[in-house]
Amino acid sequence: MNFAAARPPRAGSVDFVNGRTRLYGIVGHPIEQARSPETVTFELQRRGLNAILLPIHIRPEEFSDVFPRVLRIGNLDGIVVTVPHKGRALSHVHRVGPMGQLSGGVSIIGRSLDDRWIGEMFDGAGCVAALLRRKVALAGRRVLLLGAGGAGSAIAAELARCEPAVLFIHDPETPRCAEVIGKVSRAFPAIRIHSGLPPLEDIDVLVNASSVGMLDDNASPLNVDRLPSRMTVMDAIMDPDRTKLLRIAEESGCQTVYGREMLDSQIVAACDFMLDIRTRMADDVVFQSHRPLQSLMQS
Amino acid sequence: MNFAAARPPRAGSVDFVNGRTRLYGIVGHPIEQARSPETVTFELQRRGLNAILLPIHIRPEEFSDVFPRVLRIGNLDGIVVTVPHKGRALSHVHRVGPMGQLSGGVSIIGRSLDDRWIGEMFDGAGCVAALLRRKVALAGRRVLLLGAGGAGSAIAAELARCEPAVLFIHDPETPRCAEVIGKVSRAFPAIRIHSGLPPLEDIDVLVNASSVGMLDDNASPLNVDRLPSRMTVMDAIMDPDRTKLLRIAEESGCQTVYGREMLDSQIVAACDFMLDIRTRMADDVVFQSHRPLQSLMQS
Repeated sequence: MNFAAARPPRAGSVDFVNGRTRLYGIVGHPIEQARSPETVTFELQRRGLNAILLPIHIRPEEFSDVFPRVLRIGNLDGIVVTVPHKGRALSHVHRVGPMGQLSGGVSIIGRSLDDRWIGEMFDGAGCVAALLRRKVALAGRRVLLLGAGGAGSAIAAELARCEPAVLFIHDPETPRCAEVIGKVSRAFPAIRIHSGLPPLEDIDVLVNASSVGMLDDNASPLNVDRLPSRMTVMDAIMDPDRTKLLRIAEESGCQTVYGREMLDSQIVAACDFMLDIRTRMADDVVFQSHRPLQSLMQS
Repeated sequence: MNFAAARPPRAGSVDFVNGRTRLYGIVGHPIEQARSPETVTFELQRRGLNAILLPIHIRPEEFSDVFPRVLRIGNLDGIVVTVPHKGRALSHVHRVGPMGQLSGGVSIIGRSLDDRWIGEMFDGAGCVAALLRRKVALAGRRVLLLGAGGAGSAIAAELARCEPAVLFIHDPETPRCAEVIGKVSRAFPAIRIHSGLPPLEDIDVLVNASSVGMLDDNASPLNVDRLPSRMTVMDAIMDPDRTKLLRIAEESGCQTVYGREMLDSQIVAACDFMLDIRTRMADDVVFQSHRPLQSLMQS
């Protein structure tokens, strides 16, 4: 800007944010790798809203002090929660959906009409949506899930909902694996769910929800060099994009599904959830965590 | 997004925000009228930065609890402070510049390399910059300032710096008017500064820094129907854009300067200040509140 201009120049301006913009955020540590700022903002603006989703970096040791105050910013309408805050965020919301209760964490929270925050875990739905978008059948198939942590438990429940012939869940931490199997079995009593690692030749679909291979190109959750070529292999890990497990799967001729596809599949569901809650009183919110999944299964 | 698509569609995305975006905010109540989100964001991006300024609505009764926690968001680098938080924000910063100390408020705060917040009041500089951009001479002129509140005191100091022949300051609240005159006189002992309302025929430049006329089309800080046509009249009020005082001035044939021009003039200075602080340790920050003004006066 030239201060010496003879006339008052109007300042330049952008057209994607102004004083009326409604805010959404993604909280995490670190935050630089987050993709929601580009993708959820695109989806919000595609719906004609003056809204934007921003990275909000909160350090773990500051979370309990900073997060509840951030929730009181008046024009903030929703939050995507990512690693490592999913469990911590749960204790700051007024109501938690069934998948959040099962997994002990929330991935999306929204503000109700009466200014309360409502959370739900969508990681499981995103994983299954990514598989279904790639036309991977789950009903009647033999499925192996690796990892029974927060993400693993949410994915276990969504996989069970798809009515596999059998679901194996493997986690070296036997007690938490047993706990997840107990919870999911009570929710889906008709589904056969077992603990442990079966012969891989018996498996149709393999999903890695453990952190083995994250930020490490040379680690794999399975100690094998080849996989049966008829198997579909999904890795929930997003960094690196192509994990060692996926490399082995591709070299073995398997169909592969990447962790990033899980996130892409959650974008619409996240926007639906946050925008729906904004129109309701907290006590009137009906959790429809399974709606996107059902519509997928019909298609 | 069509869940039934045969191939995994990549989610759409925007190009103005991502996980590495640095955040700036404007805090106020209300916030919808703020123009910094468009204009400061434009200036930040014009400089090649991945940065955005957002409206952050904080209610007065929540300010002391929420504001210091918002300052701990890891990727937040600067804040523009607007009504009614300028005085409150001052107590949450580590260092305050000379104009902030004089006026008892801050309009811009920035984060230092060592994660401390540094504040300064730029309202006065913005007002004078707007006048100078319109080629309104102040040196050797007879200037009348209406209002000796937070904005008025900052403007008084910047007007005094321009070496007017005489500066009158009028405020019905006599004690605060006397206090401002005392402070500014000590800073600029060579300048004649008087309290009260002189005959308007003697005045070259009139600046309204009182709130009379704000959100009220029919209120004017001066009880007159006409003004001397040789007078330049500036109103620091931004809403309405064209106050009753400015209407009277224009009908009288005076040159007028609008409140909005003050904000436009602050954009470059605000960005300079916040970005400079980000490169320094808190104790090494040298306040250069007057640099933009000096460059103006030379041009």
